[in-house]
Amino acid sequence: EYGLSYLSLRACIGLWTAFLCLLLVATDASSLVCYITRFTEEAFASLICIIFIYEALEKLIHLGETYPINMNNNLEKLTIYRCSCIEPANPSNATLQYWEQNNISAPEIFWEALEVQDCIEKKGEFVGSACGPHGPYVPDVLFWSIVLFFSTVAMSAFLKEFKTSRYFPTKVRAIISDFAVFITIFTMVLVDYILGVPSPKLKVPNVFKPTRDDRGWFINPLGPNPWWTCVITVVPALLCTILIFMDQQITAVIINRKEHKLKKGCGYHLDLFIVGVMLGVCSLMGLPWFVAATVLSITHVNSLKLESECSAPGEQPKFLGIREQRVTGLMIFLLMGCSVFMTSVLKFIPMPVLYGVFLYMGASSLRGIQFFDRLRLFGMPAKHQPDFIYLRHVPLRKVHLFTIIQLSCLVLLWVIKTSRAAIVFPMMVLALVFIRKLLDFIFTKRDLSWLDDLMPESKKKKLEDAEREEEQSILAEEEGIVQVPLEGHYKDDPSTVNITDEMSKGSFGNTWNSKTDLNSKSPLS
Amino acid sequence: EYGLSYLSLRACIGLWTAFLCLLLVATDASSLVCYITRFTEEAFASLICIIFIYEALEKLIHLGETYPINMNNNLEKLTIYRCSCIEPANPSNATLQYWEQNNISAPEIFWEALEVQDCIEKKGEFVGSACGPHGPYVPDVLFWSIVLFFSTVAMSAFLKEFKTSRYFPTKVRAIISDFAVFITIFTMVLVDYILGVPSPKLKVPNVFKPTRDDRGWFINPLGPNPWWTCVITVVPALLCTILIFMDQQITAVIINRKEHKLKKGCGYHLDLFIVGVMLGVCSLMGLPWFVAATVLSITHVNSLKLESECSAPGEQPKFLGIREQRVTGLMIFLLMGCSVFMTSVLKFIPMPVLYGVFLYMGASSLRGIQFFDRLRLFGMPAKHQPDFIYLRHVPLRKVHLFTIIQLSCLVLLWVIKTSRAAIVFPMMVLALVFIRKLLDFIFTKRDLSWLDDLMPESKKKKLEDAEREEEQSILAEEEGIVQVPLEGHYKDDPSTVNITDEMSKGSFGNTWNSKTDLNSKSPLS
Repeated sequence: EYGLSYLSLRACIGLWTAFLCLLLVATDASSLVCYITRFTEEAFASLICIIFIYEALEKLIHLGETYPINMNNNLEKLTIYRCSCIEPANPSNATLQYWEQNNISAPEIFWEALEVQDCIEKKGEFVGSACGPHGPYVPDVLFWSIVLFFSTVAMSAFLKEFKTSRYFPTKVRAIISDFAVFITIFTMVLVDYILGVPSPKLKVPNVFKPTRDDRGWFINPLGPNPWWTCVITVVPALLCTILIFMDQQITAVIINRKEHKLKKGCGYHLDLFIVGVMLGVCSLMGLPWFVAATVLSITHVNSLKLESECSAPGEQPKFLGIREQRVTGLMIFLLMGCSVFMTSVLKFIPMPVLYGVFLYMGASSLRGIQFFDRLRLFGMPAKHQPDFIYLRHVPLRKVHLFTIIQLSCLVLLWVIKTSRAAIVFPMMVLALVFIRKLLDFIFTKRDLSWLDDLMPESKKKKLEDAEREEEQSILAEEEGIVQVPLEGHYKDDPSTVNITDEMSKGSFGNTWNSKTDLNSKSPLS
Repeated sequence: EYGLSYLSLRACIGLWTAFLCLLLVATDASSLVCYITRFTEEAFASLICIIFIYEALEKLIHLGETYPINMNNNLEKLTIYRCSCIEPANPSNATLQYWEQNNISAPEIFWEALEVQDCIEKKGEFVGSACGPHGPYVPDVLFWSIVLFFSTVAMSAFLKEFKTSRYFPTKVRAIISDFAVFITIFTMVLVDYILGVPSPKLKVPNVFKPTRDDRGWFINPLGPNPWWTCVITVVPALLCTILIFMDQQITAVIINRKEHKLKKGCGYHLDLFIVGVMLGVCSLMGLPWFVAATVLSITHVNSLKLESECSAPGEQPKFLGIREQRVTGLMIFLLMGCSVFMTSVLKFIPMPVLYGVFLYMGASSLRGIQFFDRLRLFGMPAKHQPDFIYLRHVPLRKVHLFTIIQLSCLVLLWVIKTSRAAIVFPMMVLALVFIRKLLDFIFTKRDLSWLDDLMPESKKKKLEDAEREEEQSILAEEEGIVQVPLEGHYKDDPSTVNITDEMSKGSFGNTWNSKTDLNSKSPLS
């Protein structure tokens, strides 16, 4: 728009961003992550999930414009149903000018034989009952895409859930569940290929080369732009840095949550350092910036979860930790690189299948976000509310207030992202941290510790149940009555409690004993 | 085929069947229902469910023939995509003869302007890239039907399940759940109408009159047929009687099951009497025979179930009985009659929506059929098997043998029904009863009492748990140890047990007491 070279400008911004990232590393800025609490985390994670879902649905709806269908078609008149290209009867001045510029001589063209693209290029007119507003109606493609889309979502969800089904041995179920999305995509591609309906396919280039012929493998940061662009780009680079810093750190915080039981130390500084360096390299080579992909990282961690084997029927598998290694990470990115050579296969993948996968990923990531659990509380009568730990300690209206504030932040983020003010979006993400700080004035410290705590729900519940039990035991001891605790945790098989894990918390004492001896008399009596 | 009048023949068979039914009533044949056990019941009910599911899917697939789609369509060539009607270049002798008979003068017809139906009637030929094997390809209709079909199934199932959701007050949820199918059909009709794609619609006549102009409201049983047809029709009437008798009685047995807690006496004879009389009337008027519709009757009973109100959170509603009255029955059939005047509304209902409802009804009726529970046991590792009462008492291989025999019967029934030997189908249904009798030689009486019993699973389990508990209590008393029973039924809130119901069984005694005092020491100690 301003006569500047986009790629050079982008390289400039990228280099500045890389420099600022390295500066952040040098100044120990990562220590600021302590201000990123569950409030910020979940708002950000929710936003990303919603973006996934929204984009999937939007793209599906957008297909309706690309492939318009003929509503109110008369099946009896299919014999005279057509949409031909003809010479425009009264060509406008713009059309005449266009013809002149492109050396098109209208009378010499055999208009009726032109194909769709040709007709549009030569500014022909479409005439006939099979014509939509911008060209012929496209039969079948839209509805077939819809079928593919929802089949993909349903099949992914079903296969993923297969892990908890009652059929087949555990091994088979685990494999089916792990490869759920792959199996789904493979099946859908096969069905689509057999049926042959020309659904929109993934567009992949055939050869491995720079996207434009007039550029090489490297980009000159200055290029044809005037010298001052190099300096001015520090402003967008600042916003960019904020966004990358927030995205990177929030992802890191989510990954390094206590509940994941990671054994190796976290590397906030090292991660940001690598991101900074790669940003510079990618910018110079005109490649897309590859920063911490939140959904990808979380999915990776989830798929590496190690669970105890169940032997007793009905026993819940126990989460033991993450299989921490470097093989899977390396393999993922090697395979991503190899995808460059698999274009002949990839071009068979229909786009609606990919949209379906996006929707599934977005929707399945929503589960486990506490914010959505709280949102659903609005529609629930009090007696049906699940036993969330914060509901035990915080009054319902305070919980609702907290949810509403978080929801407002999310809506604001969304509005800014989609409006013309999108450029200040990074500032708003940063603002989330400050809004969380302001909450200290509205809620008591105790309420916030329940609503905005990083410890997983289940662990807190267990701790509290244990404490309560202990109290009861002591009470029983004092009164000299045999009191067998019966509430709450009866369904937990005592053998599933991970002893070393619980002992290391050190907060148990003799509660532990009263728990394992549930079936006999209380040992304290 | 044999030059006989169908309607008169049918009237004859109908009258004979009616007579035989009345004969059965007079000879107290309904007392034979004692031989109809769960084995026969479930085989028959499964067959009907499978017929529903099969027909729904078959009809959907059949739409693919009526509305062929163009696979391998080239979207670029849509401008020259057409299917015109033309004069056959080399008309066959049959065509020439047909033209002569119908006074069609081929050269005088403007073939290109003919519509699809006209072209087929005048034996024209279809030419063009948009032509399928038997006429033009039909765009969009097939895929839109598929979308409608699966949306209907999914939406019905979702709304029906809404009763157990956590949102909204109980009243609202109950209403949504009760009217699930109606809401679904209404929504789908609306969506279909707005979209306007010409999906196949329900075909309803516009006026209320006999189906053929050459017949009056009443059928003469002899009509144009020779006199001996009146006598010979007793043979098909016999088969017909067996089928109607079995269908009627099996439905009655299912409805009168103990678990439904019906208070009014059953009317096997009266029911059959009414069926017999109505058969005669319907036959004379050439109307379809309206016999005990198994699925309709079961659905009716299910929707009249009365459940206790829950007040405590997590409390399971208790089944109290059926709201026995005559209003709903009367209203159902009055509304059915009124549907004659609602043809202007009914013709907007797309067929795929109805197929979807059939599939949903068939699939949802499968739940609760013990036979299917047992079928699923084949794919389950032993440790995942649910706690069915018969698995506690009968060895697994015996259960499997029983299931396999039942499955063979079902397959045989299905094969006979679909093969050319369909006329002996009623005999085979009757044979089910004898096969069940033969099972007495393969299984012990004890095994059969568990596998083929009419008492509902849950009640048996409760009884057994109670007995076991009693034993334990006595044991504890003897050994002088305080033993608090902790297994199995802890999750049942003691307050939900229907006291009058349990007491009336008379088999409890002091077991009852030990159950209500779960939380304190056992009263027997």
